[in-house]
Amino acid sequence: MSNLLASDNYSIAHPLILEAINKTNHGYEKSYGNDSESYILNNNIKDIFGSKAVIIPTLTGTGSNIISLTSLADGYKSVIALNLSHINIDEGGAPEAAGIKILPIDHRLGKLDITDIKNYLNFIKDQHRSQPGIISITQPSEFGRVYSLNELSDIVEVAKRYNLKTHLDGARLTNAAAALGVSLKSLTYDLGFDVISFGATKNGALLAESVITFDDALAEKIIYIRKQHMQLASKLRFISTQFNAYFKDDLYISLAQKANLAAIELKVELVPFDNQIRVKYPVEANSIFANLPSNLYASLPDKLGFYQWDDSDNLVRLMTSWSTTSAEIKNFIALLSKSL
Amino acid sequence: MSNLLASDNYSIAHPLILEAINKTNHGYEKSYGNDSESYILNNNIKDIFGSKAVIIPTLTGTGSNIISLTSLADGYKSVIALNLSHINIDEGGAPEAAGIKILPIDHRLGKLDITDIKNYLNFIKDQHRSQPGIISITQPSEFGRVYSLNELSDIVEVAKRYNLKTHLDGARLTNAAAALGVSLKSLTYDLGFDVISFGATKNGALLAESVITFDDALAEKIIYIRKQHMQLASKLRFISTQFNAYFKDDLYISLAQKANLAAIELKVELVPFDNQIRVKYPVEANSIFANLPSNLYASLPDKLGFYQWDDSDNLVRLMTSWSTTSAEIKNFIALLSKSL
Amino acid sequence: MSNLLASDNYSIAHPLILEAINKTNHGYEKSYGNDSESYILNNNIKDIFGSKAVIIPTLTGTGSNIISLTSLADGYKSVIALNLSHINIDEGGAPEAAGIKILPIDHRLGKLDITDIKNYLNFIKDQHRSQPGIISITQPSEFGRVYSLNELSDIVEVAKRYNLKTHLDGARLTNAAAALGVSLKSLTYDLGFDVISFGATKNGALLAESVITFDDALAEKIIYIRKQHMQLASKLRFISTQFNAYFKDDLYISLAQKANLAAIELKVELVPFDNQIRVKYPVEANSIFANLPSNLYASLPDKLGFYQWDDSDNLVRLMTSWSTTSAEIKNFIALLSKSL
Amino acid sequence: MSNLLASDNYSIAHPLILEAINKTNHGYEKSYGNDSESYILNNNIKDIFGSKAVIIPTLTGTGSNIISLTSLADGYKSVIALNLSHINIDEGGAPEAAGIKILPIDHRLGKLDITDIKNYLNFIKDQHRSQPGIISITQPSEFGRVYSLNELSDIVEVAKRYNLKTHLDGARLTNAAAALGVSLKSLTYDLGFDVISFGATKNGALLAESVITFDDALAEKIIYIRKQHMQLASKLRFISTQFNAYFKDDLYISLAQKANLAAIELKVELVPFDNQIRVKYPVEANSIFANLPSNLYASLPDKLGFYQWDDSDNLVRLMTSWSTTSAEIKNFIALLSKSL
Repeated sequence: MSNLLASDNYSIAHPLILEAINKTNHGYEKSYGNDSESYILNNNIKDIFGSKAVIIPTLTGTGSNIISLTSLADGYKSVIALNLSHINIDEGGAPEAAGIKILPIDHRLGKLDITDIKNYLNFIKDQHRSQPGIISITQPSEFGRVYSLNELSDIVEVAKRYNLKTHLDGARLTNAAAALGVSLKSLTYDLGFDVISFGATKNGALLAESVITFDDALAEKIIYIRKQHMQLASKLRFISTQFNAYFKDDLYISLAQKANLAAIELKVELVPFDNQIRVKYPVEANSIFANLPSNLYASLPDKLGFYQWDDSDNLVRLMTSWSTTSAEIKNFIALLSKSL
Repeated sequence: MSNLLASDNYSIAHPLILEAINKTNHGYEKSYGNDSESYILNNNIKDIFGSKAVIIPTLTGTGSNIISLTSLADGYKSVIALNLSHINIDEGGAPEAAGIKILPIDHRLGKLDITDIKNYLNFIKDQHRSQPGIISITQPSEFGRVYSLNELSDIVEVAKRYNLKTHLDGARLTNAAAALGVSLKSLTYDLGFDVISFGATKNGALLAESVITFDDALAEKIIYIRKQHMQLASKLRFISTQFNAYFKDDLYISLAQKANLAAIELKVELVPFDNQIRVKYPVEANSIFANLPSNLYASLPDKLGFYQWDDSDNLVRLMTSWSTTSAEIKNFIALLSKSL
Repeated sequence: MSNLLASDNYSIAHPLILEAINKTNHGYEKSYGNDSESYILNNNIKDIFGSKAVIIPTLTGTGSNIISLTSLADGYKSVIALNLSHINIDEGGAPEAAGIKILPIDHRLGKLDITDIKNYLNFIKDQHRSQPGIISITQPSEFGRVYSLNELSDIVEVAKRYNLKTHLDGARLTNAAAALGVSLKSLTYDLGFDVISFGATKNGALLAESVITFDDALAEKIIYIRKQHMQLASKLRFISTQFNAYFKDDLYISLAQKANLAAIELKVELVPFDNQIRVKYPVEANSIFANLPSNLYASLPDKLGFYQWDDSDNLVRLMTSWSTTSAEIKNFIALLSKSL
Repeated sequence: MSNLLASDNYSIAHPLILEAINKTNHGYEKSYGNDSESYILNNNIKDIFGSKAVIIPTLTGTGSNIISLTSLADGYKSVIALNLSHINIDEGGAPEAAGIKILPIDHRLGKLDITDIKNYLNFIKDQHRSQPGIISITQPSEFGRVYSLNELSDIVEVAKRYNLKTHLDGARLTNAAAALGVSLKSLTYDLGFDVISFGATKNGALLAESVITFDDALAEKIIYIRKQHMQLASKLRFISTQFNAYFKDDLYISLAQKANLAAIELKVELVPFDNQIRVKYPVEANSIFANLPSNLYASLPDKLGFYQWDDSDNLVRLMTSWSTTSAEIKNFIALLSKSL
């Protein structure tokens, strides 16, 4: 298959994660989270995200986001997020179906700039305007940018000043941690984020997503919202076991590092083509965005598997994963070379 | 673990289904359903449910139910269902969170009697009343009762007469098919049901649920509603492959037959205790409901793993699965014997 | 028109309230509540409901109920209420459209008995069950019963014990106050109710409903929810002026007393027919429920304007209002007499 | 009060409309629309909007919009509208609370340009994107621009080509009809619009809004959605009578003409100040948008009653109504003169 670089979702599960699933497949266990793997996970999560962390396993990234936002929205508040954020454009209207309005702001070079929320702060106390209650940031951003600890700290600080809750969409959070060389705890709890969507599926799991929080009362609320939003697996041990394998011996970090390094490798291999393939944003995690010449944009996709992101400037996305090999990259470059 | 008979969700995945997952775990494949296993499933489903059938894989039974009901509710209609149906009491308010009101009716010996919907038919055209638009039936019922083809036919006929759409909650539909000795197609398409929640998780899958319909326009609508209701897996091939293994060589029927037979076996073994354990409903699929003496009800659960269903009449549920063995049943009976 | 006793909504606005509207109809005033009549109302409400009371005018009783419940539901909780309560059966599914599940309990002689909520208390902390968060009581009840201060006090006390919030559906609350001879403050704030739907339309206003609370933070939240739930009138001065006239010189109490007395008068006039018209519930406010003989139930309604409440026991409702006169009652009795 | 030109909602009800309310205030009438005024309105509406027109009276403009959009959204579709449209920014998140996502596009000189919806048409059939199902246009636009019949015709034509339903937010539709010198039928039914939010409150009514459609099946659906969305008045005769007076002897047109002419008069009076008060958009109905110098923008509002629209370019709105007099305009100009 030639389009293996279109998304990190095209990869398989890592063998160690699959092995964990196989090992878990014996004997009877209570369902809905009252099983031994889930109990182990409840402890593991405290090692990774800090002693206050509670994990609520879910099934999709969209599910994690909707549960997170619902738990913070107090039944009527709206969410400030990038216009091109996953929650605003890639979730089929799931936030709105859950009653939540997104207040969009434009990105700056692929990131949210906290000073841009100013316009919405003017809405506060205006009874005609949806009241902003949450800021949601995707880390790394939808454009593969990684927010620094300082940037995140600023965002949380401003949010707190205006009584806004903070949500981190971390479907690929481990890639950001690997890129920054910091722990998941440093990226979340230490900064004061309220709720995290934390995914493993894109980085080696078969199907394992979650919501993480650091407040027991909020965690209990999330338990009920998870059921209401259809994210409670019956044989939950098979989700928990994936997380347990993911965290064991820092597998999660190793896999993210591999994906990030493959992106660097790919970027280097693309240098000779830089008159035609112009990398648009700094490559900081595991994706590369590039503008193509119009004719290339129009003719290539099916063959080479670029993910077409924006027709208006012929923007494509390439994405590496934990399983991307040098051979695959070289093969892609060879194919590309022939196509140009 | 002593409570292995409390729910069929306590079982593992069947080895053949796990093997399919393992085999699928190689190479790159497009995500979100554009993979080879999903293509195969699209064909398989037509063999099982008829040539018009379309399957939309999902992640939870609750998810399948909410997607099904939303696809039929036209944005404002309500759903007639048993008061004690799963959608009304066991889904944490998921239908209502999706804007859907349940119009409850009492069961008669564990089943919905179609003549009991009369009261709600009076609501039709009354602008103050939520307008009934759907009848939802669980097959087998939440009490382990199996509707006959005639009963289902009557329900669909009455529904059509009053312009009500029909939904079948089939989390355990295969157990009903096995019990009746009929095909899934006979139980659904042939009778004229509009949308089916069809699950495999309780009968041998690891995590595999779906919505099935027989109308292309409705199927397309369901695709979008699935995303909106957070049930679209990214690495969807791992869901589809479970269904493909489930359908291969009639595994699904064999497993359901095993579960149903185990229930009969268990019922027979309970006969000597029938002065204390009074089976309440006919045992027609894989569950047994029984009233216990008060002192037994109060003291036994933790030890023996009865699922306490209703405190008001000391009602418990026992549930067999595809994996229940005669040895497990005998062991349970031995334990029970000692406890009495 | 012969059916003038079918509902108190069939009445006109009281002349003093219409006069207030006429007087308000001059000059320019800010919209959406920033007008002089609304400022006056903000003070008046503190005289009537106590110094902590805040009023948020709305447009329909259903609107008041949905806003109230949304403000208390925290985005996911459900509401314990009578099965035959207005919110459960007479609002077209409005609570569910707002994401709120009703947990119904049967009435006892037309009232909610607080001991009957026990079943739902068992749901607390069960992740599969919609979590009860609110108790909603209608005063007087949908059957014209008036809860005593003791009964209400018990309800609030039990609610608080289980961390349930309390809502009073007071579309006809003044009739209850008049019946008990107590102030609106005694019936609400003094008992500890959290949020009140308080209506004037049925008791002499043209169109004037509201939500009342005693907590500033909650009141602010309700302001935004009111807009979101479409209950913010632009020329709001015309709603506020009705309330101001309603409260002036205790008009509201006088009107409710008139309606209640008319119900007593009607009840007395019905005594001679008591072999055919059996009053079912104690007549405590301004409605009378009675069971009719089958043939009378089937043949009379169009002619005499009984409101048919329940076909199963030929139950009809008669309702007096502030404008019901002795002549109208006598006329009704004369007509009835001829029909029997 | 100096700010009488900030909004047309600051006006009173026209005497003829108030007179109608007074006249309607006698005798008993059925509630919820089964009254004589409502029957008359049902006929009147056919004279004004064509023989297929059905009117469903409501209570707020936001209510009309949400009902309209819900009736067309099929339970999951989204709405293309201007980013600065009333539904997107001025309704407190009401569409999203009803589950409806707005897909915003930028205006061009105060209007929606139908070619700009292209981006969203690319979303059609993409399961990750909220599916556009409706185009909503405000006529006159939120910036006082009036779409020509040709422009509207183009919009409807494109919408139909892509299976999009069409909604007209007509809170001030009569002002557009008056501006264009065409009938309301020409502006709606003749062009093929599906559902209209039609308001009278801003143009002389006390409180009278509605939804209008031309399809009986849709009208019936809207009836139930109205109740569900809390817009069904009990003493509905008082809403209907306002519409009846509004339509009588073309009062509605006369009032809109007066408001529009007052805007022209105001615009002319502003000419001498055009170095400081720069009219931004063509004045086509009853509002004027102008950019002020920064110091004026910062210092004037409280005194002169400009409605501050956009801080980024010191944009203010002035709005005339049916009741605006030449004396009021002159007075405003005198005040303004002194302030500069």
